[in-house]
Amino acid sequence: MEKRLQEEIQKARGLEKAEKVYVNGKVVNVFTSEIEEISIAVDKGKIIGLGDYEGEEVIDLEGKYVVPGLIDSHVHIESSMTTPKAFSEILLKHGVTTIIADPHEIANVKGIEGIKFMLEESKDVPVDMYFMLPSCVPSGDFETAGAVLGAEELEELIEDKKVLGLGELMNFPGLLAGDKDVLKKAALAEGKIIDGHGPGLVGKDLNAYILAGVKTDHECSTEEEMKERLRRGMIVQIREGSATKNIEALIPVVNKENLSRIVFCTDDRDPEDLIREGSIDNNIRKSVSLGLDPIDGIKMATINPASVYGLNNKGAIAPGYEATFFTVDNLKDFQIQDLFVKGEKKVSEGELKENIFKGKEYIKELGNTVRLPELTIEDLEIKITGEKANIIELVSQNITTTLVKENVGEPGEIFVPSKEYSKVAVIERHNATGNKALGILKGYGITGGAVAQTIAHDSHNLICIGDNDEDMYQAIREIEKMGGGQAIVSKGEILAEMPLPIGGIMSDLSVVETAENQKKMFEAAKNLGINEDVAPFMTLGFMSLAVIPEVKLTDKGLIDTLHFKEIPLFE
Amino acid sequence: MEKRLQEEIQKARGLEKAEKVYVNGKVVNVFTSEIEEISIAVDKGKIIGLGDYEGEEVIDLEGKYVVPGLIDSHVHIESSMTTPKAFSEILLKHGVTTIIADPHEIANVKGIEGIKFMLEESKDVPVDMYFMLPSCVPSGDFETAGAVLGAEELEELIEDKKVLGLGELMNFPGLLAGDKDVLKKAALAEGKIIDGHGPGLVGKDLNAYILAGVKTDHECSTEEEMKERLRRGMIVQIREGSATKNIEALIPVVNKENLSRIVFCTDDRDPEDLIREGSIDNNIRKSVSLGLDPIDGIKMATINPASVYGLNNKGAIAPGYEATFFTVDNLKDFQIQDLFVKGEKKVSEGELKENIFKGKEYIKELGNTVRLPELTIEDLEIKITGEKANIIELVSQNITTTLVKENVGEPGEIFVPSKEYSKVAVIERHNATGNKALGILKGYGITGGAVAQTIAHDSHNLICIGDNDEDMYQAIREIEKMGGGQAIVSKGEILAEMPLPIGGIMSDLSVVETAENQKKMFEAAKNLGINEDVAPFMTLGFMSLAVIPEVKLTDKGLIDTLHFKEIPLFE
Repeated sequence: MEKRLQEEIQKARGLEKAEKVYVNGKVVNVFTSEIEEISIAVDKGKIIGLGDYEGEEVIDLEGKYVVPGLIDSHVHIESSMTTPKAFSEILLKHGVTTIIADPHEIANVKGIEGIKFMLEESKDVPVDMYFMLPSCVPSGDFETAGAVLGAEELEELIEDKKVLGLGELMNFPGLLAGDKDVLKKAALAEGKIIDGHGPGLVGKDLNAYILAGVKTDHECSTEEEMKERLRRGMIVQIREGSATKNIEALIPVVNKENLSRIVFCTDDRDPEDLIREGSIDNNIRKSVSLGLDPIDGIKMATINPASVYGLNNKGAIAPGYEATFFTVDNLKDFQIQDLFVKGEKKVSEGELKENIFKGKEYIKELGNTVRLPELTIEDLEIKITGEKANIIELVSQNITTTLVKENVGEPGEIFVPSKEYSKVAVIERHNATGNKALGILKGYGITGGAVAQTIAHDSHNLICIGDNDEDMYQAIREIEKMGGGQAIVSKGEILAEMPLPIGGIMSDLSVVETAENQKKMFEAAKNLGINEDVAPFMTLGFMSLAVIPEVKLTDKGLIDTLHFKEIPLFE
Repeated sequence: MEKRLQEEIQKARGLEKAEKVYVNGKVVNVFTSEIEEISIAVDKGKIIGLGDYEGEEVIDLEGKYVVPGLIDSHVHIESSMTTPKAFSEILLKHGVTTIIADPHEIANVKGIEGIKFMLEESKDVPVDMYFMLPSCVPSGDFETAGAVLGAEELEELIEDKKVLGLGELMNFPGLLAGDKDVLKKAALAEGKIIDGHGPGLVGKDLNAYILAGVKTDHECSTEEEMKERLRRGMIVQIREGSATKNIEALIPVVNKENLSRIVFCTDDRDPEDLIREGSIDNNIRKSVSLGLDPIDGIKMATINPASVYGLNNKGAIAPGYEATFFTVDNLKDFQIQDLFVKGEKKVSEGELKENIFKGKEYIKELGNTVRLPELTIEDLEIKITGEKANIIELVSQNITTTLVKENVGEPGEIFVPSKEYSKVAVIERHNATGNKALGILKGYGITGGAVAQTIAHDSHNLICIGDNDEDMYQAIREIEKMGGGQAIVSKGEILAEMPLPIGGIMSDLSVVETAENQKKMFEAAKNLGINEDVAPFMTLGFMSLAVIPEVKLTDKGLIDTLHFKEIPLFE
C-alpha cells in the first residue's frame, strides 16, 4: 500500500504523468457549490488531483458540466423486474453509479439465499451496489413467505463489506411494542445505518423510533412530516418512485440550513418509468423544475448520501475520490452525455458503450420457485355461506382498501363474479403448503378474463383476479408453467404474459425487453375493462400486503388489518 | 442491550416517566437552524425525546437558549500547561464538553508512555477527550526528543476506542517526498481521520497531501488558502489560539454553501487566555461579532465536528444523543450559564459545581523527566572563532526567524552578551546525553538576567536565554531542582518560577493557579527589558523548532532550517 501511495503522490505532484487527464470541463464542486473550469487528473480509477496536469491520455469534456456519479440512497432492485446486471445498464444511462439496495422482495421468496444472489450478481457490475439487510421478512404473521429472517439469520451477513446496515424498519409497531426480535435486529446494526419506514409516525412514537437507532426515512409525504423528522435528527430521503412520488410535496421544505440532512431516493421504479423518466436524474430534474437550486439537487444525490452511508470516496470530484462522473450540457435539462466509472467511459452521448447484461446465466440458482399444491378448477369456487360478504373495496389510486359488507347472493348459492365484484385467489406458491384463500374485490372491474401473477407483496404468493373460474385457472396454470411471472387470459386465450423466472419476481431479460413486455401486458389489460383508476398489476400486487389498511387477502385468508385478525368471507 | 432499549422506548413513548425533563428552554436545533420552545426528556444520560414529557425530576431552563455541548476539534492539552483533569474544569465553564486532542508535546517527552498518561488521566473526566496519535515525534532529525515514535510504535494505540486517527501531519515534506515511515503512518490510519497541518501548501502539492488521506487543516491563515482547501474536499478548522488567531481572516469565507465543511478549533490556548477569553465559546463570540450567524457558529462547534470525527451521539439535541448541553441568555454574548453533562449539572450560573481536579496524584508517573549532564558555568562560555557570527534574529510577533551574519567581537575573545545580542543555550534534558549547543539571538532584549524553561518545541529540551552566564547557570539549576518548568533569575535572585513537574511541560496545579503563576512570570519578565513585541516564554519556546524557517538552535547545534543543515556559530 505504501508503494502505491508513493506512486500516486508522485503523480499528484505532477512529477510523473497521470494516466488520464479530463480537460475542458466545468466541474461541479459539491463542497463549495462553485463551478470550476479545471482539469481532472486520474490514475488507476482514482482522482489524484485537480489543476494543470499532463496525462498519458487526454479526454476532452467539451466545455460541459461535470457531475459526480449519482447515488440512489434507497431502492428495491426487484421493482425494476430485472437483475442487478440488467438494472445497472439503465442506471448508468441515467448517471446513477452507486445504489443502496434493500433486497426485501427476493428475501421474501428465497431468504438469505436470495440476498446472497443479489450480492453475487452485483459483484462485477460497474454500478456499485450496497445492501441493507431486509428487516421485516415476512411482513407479519398473516402471510406465508418463502423465508423467515430473524436476527439470527441476518447475523451471517451483517459484516459483509457490501452491507451497510438494516433495511427499512417497517415493523415500527413491533419496535414500539418492544418486540424482542425487532430489537435484536436493531442491536445487530449497531454502528451501522438503520433505514426507516415510518409513515404517519409523529411525536413521542417518532422519538422512540429514532432513539432505537433509525436514521433515515423515505416515507415522508407531507411538509409537516418532513420537518418533524429533520428536527429530530433524521435524514430525510425524498422519494420519486413509480407508485409514490413525493418531490412536489417535499421540495418546498428544502433550504440552505437543512440541505445537508436531505438525500434523494427512488424506492421503486418500474422498467417503463426507468426508460422514460430515468432514476435519480429524474429526481434532480423534477426538483429543479420546481425551483430547487441545481447544485443543491446534485448535493442531495452525491455528497449527502455518500456522507450518510459512510461512502467516503464517493460523491465528489476531488483528490482521493473515485473518478466516477458524467457530463451534461446544462444543469437544468440534466441529460447525461458521457459517463465515466473509475475513469472508464461507460456511456457515450447517452448510450451504453457495451452491454453489461449478458443474459440468462443465473436462472438456475433462483429459478423454480413456484411450487403449487394440487389444484382443480373447483378449488376456485366460492360457496356463499352468509347474507353479507366481507368485501375488499379498492381506494382510487391507492394501495389501501376499505372493508365493506354487502350482499353478493343468497346463502347456499355459488358466487358469480361481475364487473362490480371480482373474484380473487391467493395461493401459497413457495412450498406447496396448500394454503389458499378466496375473496371478493370491488372496484377492479375486470370482465371476460383473468390476471395472475407471482408479485404479491410482501410474500409474493400467487395472486389471481378474474370474473370466471376457467380463465383464472388457466392463468394460474400458465404462471406455473412459466415458473413465475404475470399472465392475462381471456376466454381461454393467453393475451399476454411476462415470464419472471427469477424468484417469480424478476425477468431474465434486459430492462428494455422487460419494459416492452410490460407495455404489451398493459395493452392486453386494456381489453378486459379494468377500471381506469386502477394500475392493473401493481394494485393487484398490493392486495396481499397485510400491514396496509383496511382489509387484504393472503394465503392464510381474509385479514382485517386494522384489528390484526382473520375474518370470514361471509357473515 | 435489548432490555435497556425496550425500557428507553417505553419512556420515549411517554408510557413511563422519564428520569429528567428539562422544561422552558429555547432549544437550538442544529439540523434545521430553528429555535424550538420544547422540553427535553432524558434518561440515564441520554436524550430520549423532545416534546411534552413527564419526568421524575423537572429542571427549569428559565427561558434560556439551550445549546449542545461544544467540541474543540483540535487542541493540545499541554498548551494549557495543565493536566486533562485540570483542563476539563476550564473547558466546562466555557461550554466545551468534547475535545479532540493531539498529545504531541507529552509524546515528545515520554513517547507512548506520555500518550497513555493522557488517555488514563482523561478517563473519568466529564469532558470527553479523544486523541489523535502524534504523527511527527520528533519533528525531524535535528533535535533529540525524549522519544521516537515510528509507525510501529503507534500501532499499539491506533485501535484504542479513544483514538480517532493520526494527529496533524506536519511532516508534509516527508510525505510528499514519499518517506516510508510517514506513508506507513498514513496507512495505519486507514478508515480513520488524518489531521493535517499544511501551511502554505497549494496546487499539486496540496492535491498530493489530500490524496494521501489528510482530511483536515487548521493552518489556513488566508482566504485563498481556506478556499482552495475547501474546494479540494478538506475540512477546514478555523483556529483561534493564544499564539495564532485566524478567525478575523477566515470568517469572511464561511457561507451557507460550505458551512458543513467548516469546524472550529483552538489548537493552543494558554491558561490566562482560557480564563480571560475562554475556549471554543470565544471562537463563536468573536465570529458572531464579525457577522457570522450565531447558529452557524454553533453548528461549526457541534454537529459539524461530531460528523467529521464520527462522534454520532454528540453535537445535537435530539433522541439518542447525549444529554450534554448548556444554557445562555442570548446567542450573541454567549455566556455559559448552566451546563449539563449526560444529564448531570456540572456548571451552575457559570461556576463549576464541584472540582474535578483533585491535585497531584499523578506526578510520580510523569515526574522526574529532567536529566541534565554534568554542567559547569564554564560550559556556557562562547569563544569567538570567526569574524562573523551566524545569528538568529527574531521576526516581530512571529515564531519564524532570520539568519543574519554579524560581528560580535574578535576571534579569540569571549562573547559578551548585550541588550542587542542575547546568549541562548539548549541542553538535552531527557537522557543526560550531554548534547548542548550555544547560540546568539538578536531582538529579545533581555538585560540583567536570564529565562530558562523546559518548554521548547517540539523536543522540549532545556532552553535558556540571558545576558550573563551566572544568571543563566542559576536558572538552569533552578529548573533542574524543580524537575522542569520555567524560571526567571536576575542578579542572583529568582524573580519568579513556574514548576512544571509533569514531563517538564505541565503543572500539577489547577488552571486558575497555573494562570496566576503565569501572570507572576509575565510581571517578572517585564523587569528584564525584554522587547515588547516578544512573548517572553512562547517565543523562546519556539527557538528550537527546526522545522520553522530560517534558523533555530537545538541540542544538536545551530540549524539552517531552509537548507536542512547544521551550520557553525562562527564563520
